[in-house]
Amino acid sequence: MNPLDYVHVNRSKWLDELKEFLSIPSVSTQAEHKPDIERAARWLRDQLQAVGFPKVEVMPTAGHPIVYAEWLAAGPSAPTLLIYGHYDVQPPDPLDLWHTPPFEPTIVGDDLFCRGASDDKGQLYTHVKAIEAFKETLGAPPVNVKCLFEGEEEVGSVNLNPFIVAHKDLLAADVAVISDSHILGKDIPAIVYALRGIAYVEVEVTGPTGDLHSGIYGGAVHNPINALCAMIASLHDEHNRVAIPGFYDAVRDLDAGERAALAKIPFNREAWLKEAGVSADWGDPDYTIVERTSARPTLDVNGIWGGYIEPGAKTVLPSKAFAKISMRLVPDQKHAEIARLIEEHLKAVAPPTVSVAVRNLHGGEGAIVNRDSAAIRAAFQAYEAGFGVTPVFMREGGSIPVVAAFKEELGIDTVLMGFGLPDDNLHAPNEKMHLPNVYKGIETVIHFMTTLGAG
Amino acid sequence: MNPLDYVHVNRSKWLDELKEFLSIPSVSTQAEHKPDIERAARWLRDQLQAVGFPKVEVMPTAGHPIVYAEWLAAGPSAPTLLIYGHYDVQPPDPLDLWHTPPFEPTIVGDDLFCRGASDDKGQLYTHVKAIEAFKETLGAPPVNVKCLFEGEEEVGSVNLNPFIVAHKDLLAADVAVISDSHILGKDIPAIVYALRGIAYVEVEVTGPTGDLHSGIYGGAVHNPINALCAMIASLHDEHNRVAIPGFYDAVRDLDAGERAALAKIPFNREAWLKEAGVSADWGDPDYTIVERTSARPTLDVNGIWGGYIEPGAKTVLPSKAFAKISMRLVPDQKHAEIARLIEEHLKAVAPPTVSVAVRNLHGGEGAIVNRDSAAIRAAFQAYEAGFGVTPVFMREGGSIPVVAAFKEELGIDTVLMGFGLPDDNLHAPNEKMHLPNVYKGIETVIHFMTTLGAG
Repeated sequence: MNPLDYVHVNRSKWLDELKEFLSIPSVSTQAEHKPDIERAARWLRDQLQAVGFPKVEVMPTAGHPIVYAEWLAAGPSAPTLLIYGHYDVQPPDPLDLWHTPPFEPTIVGDDLFCRGASDDKGQLYTHVKAIEAFKETLGAPPVNVKCLFEGEEEVGSVNLNPFIVAHKDLLAADVAVISDSHILGKDIPAIVYALRGIAYVEVEVTGPTGDLHSGIYGGAVHNPINALCAMIASLHDEHNRVAIPGFYDAVRDLDAGERAALAKIPFNREAWLKEAGVSADWGDPDYTIVERTSARPTLDVNGIWGGYIEPGAKTVLPSKAFAKISMRLVPDQKHAEIARLIEEHLKAVAPPTVSVAVRNLHGGEGAIVNRDSAAIRAAFQAYEAGFGVTPVFMREGGSIPVVAAFKEELGIDTVLMGFGLPDDNLHAPNEKMHLPNVYKGIETVIHFMTTLGAG
Repeated sequence: MNPLDYVHVNRSKWLDELKEFLSIPSVSTQAEHKPDIERAARWLRDQLQAVGFPKVEVMPTAGHPIVYAEWLAAGPSAPTLLIYGHYDVQPPDPLDLWHTPPFEPTIVGDDLFCRGASDDKGQLYTHVKAIEAFKETLGAPPVNVKCLFEGEEEVGSVNLNPFIVAHKDLLAADVAVISDSHILGKDIPAIVYALRGIAYVEVEVTGPTGDLHSGIYGGAVHNPINALCAMIASLHDEHNRVAIPGFYDAVRDLDAGERAALAKIPFNREAWLKEAGVSADWGDPDYTIVERTSARPTLDVNGIWGGYIEPGAKTVLPSKAFAKISMRLVPDQKHAEIARLIEEHLKAVAPPTVSVAVRNLHGGEGAIVNRDSAAIRAAFQAYEAGFGVTPVFMREGGSIPVVAAFKEELGIDTVLMGFGLPDDNLHAPNEKMHLPNVYKGIETVIHFMTTLGAG
């Protein structure tokens, strides 16, 4: 039996195992899920041992553990592939918008619904099973393999960079691969060659030292919610561009060639509007929707709160108002610099009647990968074989800061071999993974490793 | 024994009873406190029966019940006084800012801390005990008395107006009295001759139909939080005036005489800043702090929420954002018209990329009372006797819509005989009542009823 046939006969068994993995609510941002994070790490360790990795370790960090595994059976002349993934997931809220329980994997048609199905447990899983297929048919994978699976991707991977720096020899490899992105459609495989970075801050505006009665003090005490809203309104100009001074200074402009290439990506405006759930698009009129969502920097308020937010009416003039604000960054914006610029701007526009504190929640640099490397060419051929379609090149709007860390600390490029779909509802209710993409994904990974090993 | 001596010997016993009343968490805006509301109504009924009212009834409404009592012992030639108060209280949150449990009455120095201590259980209580003093010393109060104690003041008194309209004969009186406001200081009694009205709306801004990943859609889908913030920012101009078109059209200007009188109210800017807990005041520069907080209309966001508001970072582009907005109104602004104007304005400034819904949560008209009536003169003398100081006339920033209803439906003026203090922390953590004001309050009510009865 060859590895591809082995995939075919094991689909049903592997689906049951994936459901088991998904049912662990490994939410990294909430302290009460710490035991689930640890359970998910142990589950992965057991899986990696079962599929044949001779060395598997759950390695502690200052936060959630990293699961590391290696299998160097291909020998020193074969390339070494570093596989990165994350076993933590986003919080499932708002719970009332889920059609099925967020941590009960549920199949509807060809889709598997569960928090983490696509981001990233279901995608990470394709690599584990590709290696099992090699083990059970050929005895071992055709390349040397190292796995680095972290549990803090959804909280900014704060302990990953120190881990990489502290374990450069352990992680030494020729190229990295990550399946934590989406292709353009069921039959439109795509290779992501650029990622955006992120700067994520929390803003706290304080007015009076305590909550006041708005009927007694309103009109003579500055309301911190009103003040915060005006400050947030100042973050965009009338062309929907980010209005923080200096925000665009380092942005690498899109050249005409790249804009022409991006314009060739299949894009259906009506389908996009429907998928986004809006009647009209929004944004900088000088750029297309594809450019705005992948190749241009953005700013979004991800959360805001202050005052009385329960049912009914309370006439409070609150002491404090808060907002979480994230900015997607493009090369060559640096997240630390952008976090500094927004803090400076917010403090500059804040009226003297309130005080402002800005906390840096997390940051990551963007990345652009060389499209002409051997690994990217291998990925191109693997998609063609796995999906039966020629893939396109695209930029991704989301952030995978580890790509920048791999380049900087290990000196290697990363192949972004996504198997998700644009409507997977990442970070939102009803996250799902398209099941055929799981199986095609395993096959694509098998082709990729085979080509890399033969190279 | 005369009624004033009776007050003196019963202080300790009455304090225990007041604590019992305060310990009932009669929060009217939260459904889970419905049994507590009913318990508070029964407690009041039992009290009124115990102090001698021959007729006491707990009367149902479509919401929380009204406690009605009458004692017409003074005869048809004596005036009839309608006493209004409310036994419901604001929610205690944010709980973590209370220094003592919000529903465990706690005495610190001369202050009694508890939600409702000043607003309005502790103030309402002064009338009940004044009548007990008359009963136990003179056999009956010197005026005919009707009590109207409602349980929905903190949720906009939605069922009070229909009750008044349906019971005009029952409530017929010569004048009303309400103790639900504050004087200017421990030794600065004040008679409130004007109240502000209120219009309170909730705004819901919808962007995409579901929550989205901000890395995938940010920059091309309008974020409803950003949109809401810009809309809220448009509600004030650069002079901190309300920028809703037409908002000031009906406002009755302050004449020079009234401005001069208001300027005579003892006001210490430094003390006010300290009490408010701010380093600087804010507002329309054309008016003084006293004018802004009592004689001019205002707008405050009382609550705002949307997106991810738990600890940590979530990169969501939310479907919805909400705000609760209230406006304090002055004669002759009408709350229904103002609610219509803000809805119109918010919809006019909303970009086409979001949809906006505005719900009217509640409204009440402001009022100005005739300063030269016999009842106001009686109140003036009563404060002089009760506090030993000449009172001043002032306007109150808060809203007691029932004053307008009494004028309109029953044709009577209302005496606002407050015993609270400016730093009582109404609607905020650590609400308290200054205990000497409770006892001076009971004595002032005794003087007031005596003068009225002799008139």
